[in-house]
Amino acid sequence: MAKKAKQRKLRAKSNAREKESPKQIAKKLEAIGKEMVTDIMKGRDPEFKTQLRGRSNVEFDEERGILILGDKETSRNFLNVGHARKFMQTVMVAAKTRDYLDHNKTASIREIYYELKHTVPNSKENTFDSQTESDSCIVDLEHSIDSIREKLNLHANPKGTLYGDITLRDKMHQNDKFNCAKLGRGGWSIMSRIEPEEIEIVKVNAKYVLVIETEAMYERLVEERFAQKNKAILVSTGGQAARGTRRLVHRLHAEEKLPVIVFTDGDPYGWYIYSVIKQGSMALAAHSDFLACPDACYVGMTLDDVETFKLQNVTEKMKEGDIKRAKEMLDYPWFKNKEWRAQLKKAISEKIRIEQQALANKSLEFVATEYLPKKIKNEEFLP
Amino acid sequence: MAKKAKQRKLRAKSNAREKESPKQIAKKLEAIGKEMVTDIMKGRDPEFKTQLRGRSNVEFDEERGILILGDKETSRNFLNVGHARKFMQTVMVAAKTRDYLDHNKTASIREIYYELKHTVPNSKENTFDSQTESDSCIVDLEHSIDSIREKLNLHANPKGTLYGDITLRDKMHQNDKFNCAKLGRGGWSIMSRIEPEEIEIVKVNAKYVLVIETEAMYERLVEERFAQKNKAILVSTGGQAARGTRRLVHRLHAEEKLPVIVFTDGDPYGWYIYSVIKQGSMALAAHSDFLACPDACYVGMTLDDVETFKLQNVTEKMKEGDIKRAKEMLDYPWFKNKEWRAQLKKAISEKIRIEQQALANKSLEFVATEYLPKKIKNEEFLP
Repeated sequence: MAKKAKQRKLRAKSNAREKESPKQIAKKLEAIGKEMVTDIMKGRDPEFKTQLRGRSNVEFDEERGILILGDKETSRNFLNVGHARKFMQTVMVAAKTRDYLDHNKTASIREIYYELKHTVPNSKENTFDSQTESDSCIVDLEHSIDSIREKLNLHANPKGTLYGDITLRDKMHQNDKFNCAKLGRGGWSIMSRIEPEEIEIVKVNAKYVLVIETEAMYERLVEERFAQKNKAILVSTGGQAARGTRRLVHRLHAEEKLPVIVFTDGDPYGWYIYSVIKQGSMALAAHSDFLACPDACYVGMTLDDVETFKLQNVTEKMKEGDIKRAKEMLDYPWFKNKEWRAQLKKAISEKIRIEQQALANKSLEFVATEYLPKKIKNEEFLP
Repeated sequence: MAKKAKQRKLRAKSNAREKESPKQIAKKLEAIGKEMVTDIMKGRDPEFKTQLRGRSNVEFDEERGILILGDKETSRNFLNVGHARKFMQTVMVAAKTRDYLDHNKTASIREIYYELKHTVPNSKENTFDSQTESDSCIVDLEHSIDSIREKLNLHANPKGTLYGDITLRDKMHQNDKFNCAKLGRGGWSIMSRIEPEEIEIVKVNAKYVLVIETEAMYERLVEERFAQKNKAILVSTGGQAARGTRRLVHRLHAEEKLPVIVFTDGDPYGWYIYSVIKQGSMALAAHSDFLACPDACYVGMTLDDVETFKLQNVTEKMKEGDIKRAKEMLDYPWFKNKEWRAQLKKAISEKIRIEQQALANKSLEFVATEYLPKKIKNEEFLP
């Protein structure tokens, strides 16, 4: 019972964080600054607290089915010579993002690095020597304000495409309203930031979201009118999904309550793409609340498909790196169910992989008219 | 005079090729097949002719300002044991693409590989062992029919985004008509094939096309409303431009007579992206007529910008590979003008590079309100 209450509390907290406005985030940044000023005024050493990162502090929350960051904290002190430079950098990033929020500006993480880089007057010291330095300050800051960089108006590169009967409105851009099934076969190019206060999901007319690893398979399904015939929203990730794409899929899952079905190549790389969509990633374990879709399921490709659909002729050999990856994945708690263990073990012993596009060996249409509709109808999913 | 007449003839030929319909292409494929059948009926060894590829047959056409393939030919004979497998493969690809054209289907080059791959009955021989084999047949076929794979309904992966006051119609998809300045900040995801018989450019309201190397810079310019304020069409390539993106830019240049201005990082990699847009690439020298924009010009980044805009603090060191690349480029005829020689030599001697996003060091808006408008107004271009 205590556990259930804890879950409820966590969920409520997650909802509140999701809806935090730019003003509220700016307030949090201000609070950090004010505390530092108070410390200085009182002659105390100003301190900056953040969560400890890295695998040693990553946990799998079985109940919620997502990766989370543990409770371990770390702090940085201005008067510690080993911390001083990083302390200055973090304060610079905090001040600059506060500025973005005040002026309704967004910036890429490369831009903020360049914007803040300069030589400290009367010295040969640069504020930042590489983007790695500013990137790590951004992550620190995300943890201190208990939110994500998107809420700080920061973003990485966009990637991913959206197609289907979904109407979006860009509230920050002429209030543009558009239906993503009416943009020809190209579809909408997913932005790097898909925050609710900017991009509104006006209407969705679909039974589920199909997340697709390759752009070429996405084009195949668009051409076959799969979205129309199956009432599906199609999202292509183009490999590992970018944050903007993950945010969008998460929002369709959490806000619109749409089932998320993932379709990747049948190899450890593809399966990991699925797990990142579903449970989150280790690097971003702190943000699973914003990014993960714990109820997502996996439609294929599986190594069992090879036999079922007689694809023996069109498998590929697995590389050594892939086999090593499969062995590592056997150890991850979120792959520790019998279905995924069976897949991973099969991959390791048979040393083969099977691509989405290999289904073209049956016929170009096969994936759209047979493979996906049948598997989805019969719920032949991996968990 | 003879030269001018030749140019005219070439241009007329290029226009005719551009407009060839699926039916005309199918006819060409049929003709190849019929000739083979005739050869067989008459007891002759069937032959397949194509152009010789590789650097030894690539020429720079100074007058037209594009890379072209020379006249050297190569042929393949069915009764030559060394040619027989390849001969069979080429015929398979030709028959399959004929099939696509007849049924209004398109396929990725990976799909056609998988579709055609099987074991020859009563043998252990596969029709294709790797995609490299089918890819090279596709290139052969392009040359024999004197056209591009897009006209065979084949394509590679899509990449690239379009934003601005341009209305497109997808004639093969519900006749969707949409304006690319009204899709929020995401923009339209450029398809892998942008052929005139499928994608119609309905209306363009712009003074020029700005081609941008990085997605993040594209997002910056969209956010700053650069397209609206400067009547520009924005195209992001996301690195080296994909064929669909090159076709679209080429069509805006050739059909709509829009100037094409290219904006990349200031390094050999970025400059080569520019030259591929402008003159075409060595690998696809045979298709420059379909892809190149010989009148394109280059706005930046240049190494002179570093001094002009005081960006010394935000340059990056060039890697050894980049320096080697710059030295190679000095030898390319299409970089043999004094402006580009000066850039390349400067890169080699100073060993620095400057990124587009480094302009954020001035301010986030600087690129949109100062750098680009001023350089474009004063035509401070490299040729």
